[in-house]
Amino acid sequence: MKQLVLGIDIGGTNTAVGLVDCHGEVLAQAAFSTKQFGSPEMLVKGIAESYHNLASGLLEPVELKAVGIGAPNGNYYTGEIAHAPNLRWKGRIRLASMMEEAMGAPAVMTNDANAAALGEMIYGHAKGLEHFIVITIGTGLGSGIVVDGEMVYGKTGFAGEMGHTTAVRWGRRCSCGKDGCLEAYVSARGLRTTALELLEEFRYRSLLAETPPERLNAKAIFDAAMRNDEVAIRAFEFTGEVLGASLADAVAYTSPEAIFLFGGLAKSGDLLFGPTQRSLDHNLLDIFAGTVKLMPSALNDQNGAILGAAALACKTYWKD
Amino acid sequence: MKQLVLGIDIGGTNTAVGLVDCHGEVLAQAAFSTKQFGSPEMLVKGIAESYHNLASGLLEPVELKAVGIGAPNGNYYTGEIAHAPNLRWKGRIRLASMMEEAMGAPAVMTNDANAAALGEMIYGHAKGLEHFIVITIGTGLGSGIVVDGEMVYGKTGFAGEMGHTTAVRWGRRCSCGKDGCLEAYVSARGLRTTALELLEEFRYRSLLAETPPERLNAKAIFDAAMRNDEVAIRAFEFTGEVLGASLADAVAYTSPEAIFLFGGLAKSGDLLFGPTQRSLDHNLLDIFAGTVKLMPSALNDQNGAILGAAALACKTYWKD
Repeated sequence: MKQLVLGIDIGGTNTAVGLVDCHGEVLAQAAFSTKQFGSPEMLVKGIAESYHNLASGLLEPVELKAVGIGAPNGNYYTGEIAHAPNLRWKGRIRLASMMEEAMGAPAVMTNDANAAALGEMIYGHAKGLEHFIVITIGTGLGSGIVVDGEMVYGKTGFAGEMGHTTAVRWGRRCSCGKDGCLEAYVSARGLRTTALELLEEFRYRSLLAETPPERLNAKAIFDAAMRNDEVAIRAFEFTGEVLGASLADAVAYTSPEAIFLFGGLAKSGDLLFGPTQRSLDHNLLDIFAGTVKLMPSALNDQNGAILGAAALACKTYWKD
Repeated sequence: MKQLVLGIDIGGTNTAVGLVDCHGEVLAQAAFSTKQFGSPEMLVKGIAESYHNLASGLLEPVELKAVGIGAPNGNYYTGEIAHAPNLRWKGRIRLASMMEEAMGAPAVMTNDANAAALGEMIYGHAKGLEHFIVITIGTGLGSGIVVDGEMVYGKTGFAGEMGHTTAVRWGRRCSCGKDGCLEAYVSARGLRTTALELLEEFRYRSLLAETPPERLNAKAIFDAAMRNDEVAIRAFEFTGEVLGASLADAVAYTSPEAIFLFGGLAKSGDLLFGPTQRSLDHNLLDIFAGTVKLMPSALNDQNGAILGAAALACKTYWKD
């Protein structure tokens, strides 16, 4: 019998599931639309069906040791998704216990950024590190903070919400309703807003001026930057400047030895890393100079979100 | 034999020492000028002499279990003071091992804000709390962060430097050389700068306009505020607004269940707590609403700094 965990990444658009061994090998995986499910019960049923289909396709019979779930606003302490703005089901959803019943194996949940940090710790570049932070940059910005080798969950289970710390006091309105949040600047949405602001000033200099606003997304800005478009490059520079300054704050809080960038925007390479590193260096307090490395997540080119959820299951229920 | 620890608080101006039992009773204490000592060796000798004088004045004979030291830039891992801007001796000073040799008892050191947090944990309002933060507000601003019942030291031992996180991007120049640090706004110095800025605008409305600039300190602003001076009250309001917003960021990082304010400015009562609480509530992310209490440190009216240093010694070397 092959022993495995089920890693589940629930996103507003898609849900991905994977059968993972504790070396981080994804033996089988599937993804499907989250929005097709009218209720959490139907989602759980869909995930269970997907698991059985995947398992029956493997050569060896499978023993499911545990289930790990990464979900927006997923709470490690309660196993609930609480008021996730990107999901259609509102209120508190007891997803961990529902999955437990459906699968007959223990289930544990956390938010997607914490799952990414656990993935980095168990399968990625953070193996053996006691103090590190993973920043996930996609539509929004999340963070998972590890201190003394343990995930920081805090009193509520919601610790590590760096996306909604203030990057610019009295700054840009964020989707959470606050002003100047890091996420309002450093995210796919934030990059787009920055590009639109820059276009007002430098319209005549940019390829992006030709792009219809509804198609002006992070991908389009990245492509333009790769073609040396001044506005696109400046948009990345400003994004990195804001991110690096907030990372310097994060270092002042917990003094990590490494910070990993994970997710869509983290794949922009030097376009983002260059200005972020310069701003981090510039804003870092002297006592921290040279103590912290900035690098891409090892999981960026893999099934990072599935691996993160699997890592949570392994760390919690499979200590061998 | 009465078992005791020696708590030492080293400040740029004064050094305070106290003989403390592990219930937090200060049996004897003394304070003297730090600046009179031409070298760290002379300071250590002075502290040892002060200890013997204090001990010989007690009714019972004393057994010294351990020595705890709180010092600016004191590093828990190395036992060194590293480049403290407020001390006249530069470079790295191996103070913990020097004290150990002088006293014949194990010695341990941390920075003054971490010591205050340990004091709160062991003798104050944070007994039994797993997640809390202590903010020390004096000439500067320090913080001690506790997660899962343990002090956060991070990779370097310097974690918890909230005073040098950015409160206002592109803001006021801080003494550390960075711009917009929390300490540049929320500290005795910051309050004074704010009052001076407000006086430029509202000169005719303030008692403080009569105060010579060299005497315009936090005490004078407090006194004026107590007499309903508009500029003084506004200065406290602005200070609290900036502090509350940064505290909301701190909650997003580690989700504490309580935040304690310690030190000179923390004794300003509702003048500071009122606007700080309002700004914290206003800036707190929804998921943290109602999960965190803001209150004065229990150690404000006692020998807080000595108790903090004693708590460090007790926690490290006297676990009964």
